[in-house]
Amino acid sequence: MKGIKIVSFDADDTLWINETYYQDIEKEFVSMIAKYSDVDSITDAIHKKEIENLKIYGYGAKGFMLSMLETALEESKGSVSTDELNRIIEMGRGLINEPIVLLAGVKETLEKLTAAGYTLIVATKGDLLDQQRKLNNSGLEKYFDHIEIMSYKSKKDYLDLLEHLGVKPDEFIMIGNSMKSDILPILNIGGYGIHVPHHTTWAHELVDDIGKQDKLWVVEHISEVAEILEV
Amino acid sequence: MKGIKIVSFDADDTLWINETYYQDIEKEFVSMIAKYSDVDSITDAIHKKEIENLKIYGYGAKGFMLSMLETALEESKGSVSTDELNRIIEMGRGLINEPIVLLAGVKETLEKLTAAGYTLIVATKGDLLDQQRKLNNSGLEKYFDHIEIMSYKSKKDYLDLLEHLGVKPDEFIMIGNSMKSDILPILNIGGYGIHVPHHTTWAHELVDDIGKQDKLWVVEHISEVAEILEV
Repeated sequence: MKGIKIVSFDADDTLWINETYYQDIEKEFVSMIAKYSDVDSITDAIHKKEIENLKIYGYGAKGFMLSMLETALEESKGSVSTDELNRIIEMGRGLINEPIVLLAGVKETLEKLTAAGYTLIVATKGDLLDQQRKLNNSGLEKYFDHIEIMSYKSKKDYLDLLEHLGVKPDEFIMIGNSMKSDILPILNIGGYGIHVPHHTTWAHELVDDIGKQDKLWVVEHISEVAEILEV
Repeated sequence: MKGIKIVSFDADDTLWINETYYQDIEKEFVSMIAKYSDVDSITDAIHKKEIENLKIYGYGAKGFMLSMLETALEESKGSVSTDELNRIIEMGRGLINEPIVLLAGVKETLEKLTAAGYTLIVATKGDLLDQQRKLNNSGLEKYFDHIEIMSYKSKKDYLDLLEHLGVKPDEFIMIGNSMKSDILPILNIGGYGIHVPHHTTWAHELVDDIGKQDKLWVVEHISEVAEILEV
């Protein structure tokens, strides 16, 4: 695609499975703690706690563990058992050591784009050590010229990244599963976006319909990216 | 100093107070949990747990909180009260929101080096969000051309950083309070180091005498850095 110098990929749920693991653990957590209250209240409480804690703990497994522990202590009014708290810690540690399962079509797409001469980078939110470990284990590092691990993905964060990379917004295309954090901020600064929705995108990441956009594609599968980028 | 292109500073306990906060919390933690065992065993247990957890959680406040929670659950054999667990969480959250207190001489040293035309960077271990927040709150960001937040500080990590910055090891000088993570790896790859020991350097960061080194200075106070760098 003419003029595009950098093709940037989100990581979790764009390159590999992530949110599913969190949702499975959340389900087990809710059903374990439900005896102190009920499923709906616990579900609400853990979601509220996660959002509230984002600004203190940031994204990632450690913040999620602490949010579950805090919710268990609060919602049980202190009656949660130490066995249950130990189980929460065990689930969180399991999450950190979860194997990396690439999404279908990812490797082939990266191969094609690399062969066509595009410069690829990763721009991912999350915990530094978590994301580095996942990239190491993914076997995908060799495709990327630069890895940017960010605490947040605001317009300002993307502008800083573009400045660091030395490209203008209309030379940059971002590919990701979250309209809110991967696509909208990039469109707002004049860049391009390809939205590849994932079936388990976190509720916090969903946004309302954004109207017609001429620099945006929404595709069903990451393999369509190659076609959009004309390779 | 001839040939030096980049002057790199560690952050925690080099630019501002950090370890003292951790040690104060650890002291309160140990005395709170000591009733389930004794002060020496709990002190040993939390130290062991922290080291053991470094490879899973990395450095920073969230990992420290989880290490205290795990130690409390294990050492009390499940008898720890939920009030005590809540207090641990409260202490950890307090640590994250601790104000930044610059060490004496830091601002003046950065001013002098900047005025003399040196390019300054920060190379710090730790949690991404923690370290960004501290830098934001420190008022020191304007002095630094680049901020590198690293999960670890091995020889390989420094070599990657130098490649990214486009400088050779002997054009790089690292200033920090930890001989183990700030100075030794840099000397080992052929760079320069200025060790500014801090009175509360973490036991895990101490190393044995390293013998004579011709690219190393050990100073009592950060203000001596300006003199070494001939400004």
